[in-house]
Amino acid sequence: MAVKYARRMDLFKKSELGEILKLIEKPDIISFAGGLPASELFPVEEMKKVAVKVLDENGEEALQYSGSQGYLPLRIHIANRMNAKSKTNVKAENILITSGSQQALDYAGNIFLDEGDIVLCESPSYLGALNAFKNYQPKVMEVSMDKEGMIIEELEKILKENDRIKFIYVIPDFQNPTGITWSLERRKKFMEVINKYEMPVIEDNPYGELRYEGEFLPSLKSFDTKGLVIYLGTFSKIFCPGYRLGWTCASPEILRKFITCKENSDLQTSTIGQRELSKYIDDYDLDEHVEKIKATYKKRRDLMLNCMKEEFPEGVSFTHPDGGLFTWVRLPETLNAQELMGKCVKNNVAYVPGGFFFPSGNKENYFRLNYSSCKEDKIVEGIKRLGKVLNESVSETAEV
Amino acid sequence: MAVKYARRMDLFKKSELGEILKLIEKPDIISFAGGLPASELFPVEEMKKVAVKVLDENGEEALQYSGSQGYLPLRIHIANRMNAKSKTNVKAENILITSGSQQALDYAGNIFLDEGDIVLCESPSYLGALNAFKNYQPKVMEVSMDKEGMIIEELEKILKENDRIKFIYVIPDFQNPTGITWSLERRKKFMEVINKYEMPVIEDNPYGELRYEGEFLPSLKSFDTKGLVIYLGTFSKIFCPGYRLGWTCASPEILRKFITCKENSDLQTSTIGQRELSKYIDDYDLDEHVEKIKATYKKRRDLMLNCMKEEFPEGVSFTHPDGGLFTWVRLPETLNAQELMGKCVKNNVAYVPGGFFFPSGNKENYFRLNYSSCKEDKIVEGIKRLGKVLNESVSETAEV
Repeated sequence: MAVKYARRMDLFKKSELGEILKLIEKPDIISFAGGLPASELFPVEEMKKVAVKVLDENGEEALQYSGSQGYLPLRIHIANRMNAKSKTNVKAENILITSGSQQALDYAGNIFLDEGDIVLCESPSYLGALNAFKNYQPKVMEVSMDKEGMIIEELEKILKENDRIKFIYVIPDFQNPTGITWSLERRKKFMEVINKYEMPVIEDNPYGELRYEGEFLPSLKSFDTKGLVIYLGTFSKIFCPGYRLGWTCASPEILRKFITCKENSDLQTSTIGQRELSKYIDDYDLDEHVEKIKATYKKRRDLMLNCMKEEFPEGVSFTHPDGGLFTWVRLPETLNAQELMGKCVKNNVAYVPGGFFFPSGNKENYFRLNYSSCKEDKIVEGIKRLGKVLNESVSETAEV
Repeated sequence: MAVKYARRMDLFKKSELGEILKLIEKPDIISFAGGLPASELFPVEEMKKVAVKVLDENGEEALQYSGSQGYLPLRIHIANRMNAKSKTNVKAENILITSGSQQALDYAGNIFLDEGDIVLCESPSYLGALNAFKNYQPKVMEVSMDKEGMIIEELEKILKENDRIKFIYVIPDFQNPTGITWSLERRKKFMEVINKYEMPVIEDNPYGELRYEGEFLPSLKSFDTKGLVIYLGTFSKIFCPGYRLGWTCASPEILRKFITCKENSDLQTSTIGQRELSKYIDDYDLDEHVEKIKATYKKRRDLMLNCMKEEFPEGVSFTHPDGGLFTWVRLPETLNAQELMGKCVKNNVAYVPGGFFFPSGNKENYFRLNYSSCKEDKIVEGIKRLGKVLNESVSETAEV
C-alpha cells in the first residue's frame, strides 16, 4: 500500500500561475499582478480603539465560540447596507458570515456540483472562483461578454441545450479581470432568463461600492423574485482583507445549505473579528472611509489609463473600468502575454497573463493590470517599462 | 427546471442533534452538552495590550492579505512547542495555519476521499470530524477501543480485509467523547501497523496539553518515520477559540495538498488574528496560562466525578479522564440516553446522547458530559438533577 489521494487532487498537481508569481518575487519588480487594496488607507488607528473597546465591553464573549451563521449585529449592519446600496430587500436572517467571499465560492461548489455538472461563467472570469469550483470536478462553460455584460442570446442557447447546468457565476460590477460593468438593460434581461429557467446565480460583488464615475446600478439580487440569486459580498476591498470577513446573502432554503457547509468546514468565522468590524461600523463612518478609498483609486486608475495611452503601441487596447481594481489589456493576436512575461521580468514589471482567466484556455493575447495597490510614481514607472516591452514586441512581430 | 443540489447535500437534510440542542436552549438548564472552554480564564487584558501593539508595530501588514500557509513567526512558535511537548521533530515549513482544526478535518476529507472510500475511526469518535468527512461520502468503519486505546488486532484485521481505506482518524489524548488516552505501548503497536500498511493517520490532538494527572505520553507523530501522520492542533482549548486558530503538521508532500485546499477554500486564516496570537506567545507565558486552565479544569473534573459517584445509581459507570474536557457515561443497556433527554430537559439538565458519536448508530446507552465550562456550584446542582433522572429511570426499568 501507499498513500492514495482522492481523484480531485490530480487537478491541482501543478500551478503554472504559482510558478509565474514566484518569478516576480524580485524586490525591484513593479507588480500590477496582485489584487491588493492599498494598505496605507487601512483604518489602523480606529481598529486599535475598536479592539480595546470590544475586549473591554465583552471580552469573554469575543474570545469564545459563537454561532455558525455569524454575529447578529454585524449581519444587521450588512443587511442594512445591502438594502441601501444594492437596492435589495433582505434581512439579517438571509446573511451568513464567511471567511472572505472566497469561502462562499467553495461552498457554492460543494452545495451544487456533482462531478460532471456544468457551471456557466463570463468569458473571462475570476481565477479564484474557477479554482474553487474545479475542486468539485464540474465542466465550466464560458458565455461571451460584450461591453454591457454577458451576451443573453448565447446564454439562453446554452441553457436550452444543456441539462446539467447547476448555476451561473457572474461579477456584474467592475468585473475581475476585465473591469466591465453590466448595463441596467442587460441585468434585467439576464434576470428574465434566470427566472424562466429557474437557474441559481452566484452574484459576486466584491468591488460594487468602489464606483469612480457613472451611475450606480442595482444588483441582480434586487431583481430576484424567485430566491435564485446568491449574493456574495466582502469587506476585503472596502475595509481591509486581514480579518477575512465576507458574507453570503440568499433565500432561507439555499442559505441553510451554506450554513451547513460552515458548520462542517470550520464551525464559524472569528468571533472577535466579527465583533470588531461590527463595532467599527457602529463607531465610525464606513461610507466616509469608502469615499477616501475611492478618491485614491480613481486617481490611480486615471493615471494608469493616461500612462497606457501614452506608452502603449497601436494595436494594444484596454478597458476603461468605471470602478473596481482592474483594467484588462488586449494585445494583437500575434502576441502571447504568457510568453512576454520573461521580457517583463527582465524589465522589472509584471501583470497576470490573461490566459488563466479563460477556463477553456486558448486566449493568450490578454493580461490583467491592478491599479489599487501601487503608489503613483510606481504606476508611471511601471507602465513606462511595460510600454517599452510592448513596443519592442509589437515591432519585432511586425518585422517577422 | 428547478434548483438542484449536489447529491452530497442529501446527507445533511436534518440534524437530530441540532433539534436536541434547540430543546436545551432554556435559560434554567444546566448544560453539560457543550465543549466550551471556560471563558473566565481567557486572557482578555493581555489581548487588549497585544492588539494595540500589533497595530502599532505593523498595522498595515496586519490588516492586509498574507500567505496561505500562515504567518511564519507563529508557525515557528508552533513547531517549537510541538517539539517540546509532543516529542516531535518538525519545522515551521511542516505547519499550515487553519481556521481551527475543524478546517483541517474538512481538508482531510477533500484530499483523501472519493465517494465510497473508507475511513477508520475509534468507536465512538468525534462527531464534528464524522460530519466533516461525511461531506465526501465515505464509508466510516469503527474500530473498537479498550481502556488503552484502539484495539490493534481488530485494526489490522480491517486493514487486511479492505482495500479502499484512505486514512485512520484518531484522538489518542483524552479522546472526545470518551476521555480515554492511549497507552504508550498501544501507540507504538499502532505505529508499527501504520508503517507496515503505509496508511495515513489523522492524529487530532486538541486537548493533549490539558493533562491533570499521570505521565505525559509522546504523540503518534513523534513515532512517525514515514511521513504518514498528519497532526492537528488548535489554540481553542489552551488559549481561546474566538480567533479560530488551529494548525496542521504533515510531511511536505501531504502538507502541500492541505495548502492547496486552503488556497481554494478561503485563501488564508485571519492575518491579524495570527499576528496577535504570535505576539501573545512572544510577550506572555502561554505555558503558565495553560497551568492556570489545568488547575481549574482538574478541580471541575474531580468535583464532577465525585458528585457522579455520590448521585448516580448502581449499573451506571463512567470514565476517569486523565485530562481534556469530557467524561463518558455508560447506562444499563435497557436505558436509551436519547429517550432520557425529555426527562432531563424537564429537570433542567442536559448532556449529548452518545449515539451520535457512533457512525453506525445502535449504541444508545451512553452520554457525554463536559466539565470545563460549568462553574463548581452548577456542577454540583447539575449532577444532582441528572442523578435524580437516572435513579428514577433505573428503578422504573427494574420494575418492568
